[in-house]
Amino acid sequence: MAGERGAYARGLARRDEIMAGAIELFGRIGYRNATILDIATHVGISRTGLLHHFPSKEILLKAILAKRDREDLQRLARSDDALGGLRDIVELARHNAGVPDLVSLFAVLSAEASDPTHPAHDFFVRRYERARVSMADALRRAGDAGLLAPHVDIDHEARALVALMDGLQVQWLLAPDQVDMAEDLRIALQNVLVVPLPS
Amino acid sequence: MAGERGAYARGLARRDEIMAGAIELFGRIGYRNATILDIATHVGISRTGLLHHFPSKEILLKAILAKRDREDLQRLARSDDALGGLRDIVELARHNAGVPDLVSLFAVLSAEASDPTHPAHDFFVRRYERARVSMADALRRAGDAGLLAPHVDIDHEARALVALMDGLQVQWLLAPDQVDMAEDLRIALQNVLVVPLPS
Repeated sequence: MAGERGAYARGLARRDEIMAGAIELFGRIGYRNATILDIATHVGISRTGLLHHFPSKEILLKAILAKRDREDLQRLARSDDALGGLRDIVELARHNAGVPDLVSLFAVLSAEASDPTHPAHDFFVRRYERARVSMADALRRAGDAGLLAPHVDIDHEARALVALMDGLQVQWLLAPDQVDMAEDLRIALQNVLVVPLPS
Repeated sequence: MAGERGAYARGLARRDEIMAGAIELFGRIGYRNATILDIATHVGISRTGLLHHFPSKEILLKAILAKRDREDLQRLARSDDALGGLRDIVELARHNAGVPDLVSLFAVLSAEASDPTHPAHDFFVRRYERARVSMADALRRAGDAGLLAPHVDIDHEARALVALMDGLQVQWLLAPDQVDMAEDLRIALQNVLVVPLPS
């Protein structure tokens, strides 16, 4: 049993290694350009070894996307109160500044995926629908708690804040010393609140 | 002379055709994936014919980027007054909604180009620096005319408005029926003004 559990843990660790290598390579040369062999070579395993964990490049991509979404959702579900929920969004931007490969991959893919034949098209359509809905929910909770400035149009602000996070990522990737994503997001959130946002 | 002028005009028209075809193909399958032969086939000319106008894929790409920048600058230089300058930004977003291929290409490229070895890296670094500076200038003119709300931090707002335009493009490409880029940009600008923004 101990041996089986060890093999299982090693398998999971290997999956994580492959995903990390693929994120780096997809972000650098693009999802469509990177072959399974490129990724395997980059990670330092055989093509067959990689295919044992991920039977196709598309399955590997979808595993990466799903894993990041899961982790982001956990990060956004930490606080019970309305103000804490908004602060968690700033924290997510701060976390993103530590994972440039992943940010770059998502920026490239979300744009590529506007093509309806792209393997991640449906994923990104749904992801943005969900992002707008959760952002609107977070703002509505702040509004119900009397924390929102009276001029705020919640649906507009939800689209705008999601867009701001994405757009800041592109500027930050190109000029990491000139753009502080978390700080710009904090100011944007502060601008729609009537109370100070705790940092 | 008339014959020479005719040949020149035909050459320019052919250049425009090639650029339009390349924009479509780059936006759909990515700059790195599309070969010169792919583009030539897509446009319906020979590989040699294409190379006569653009000696390399990189030169073709740079011509496309420079042309769009030139056209955008013309669109943003239409008004002399501060309020008109901000309205021109909304008009640019409205114009973008009519050229999805170009918007998609720029979204993919700006993200891919965060890799310092990408042929468009320097172009996009400079482009965003310039975009932030012109947006800040437009806001400063509005401030000097007494039109800006007192809470506005001009440098933050410049980064945020540029980011908003980019982020809205991604959401719009994925859900064109749910996102009105020009309208969301108009609301965002209105939120920093103390007078109505003319539509």
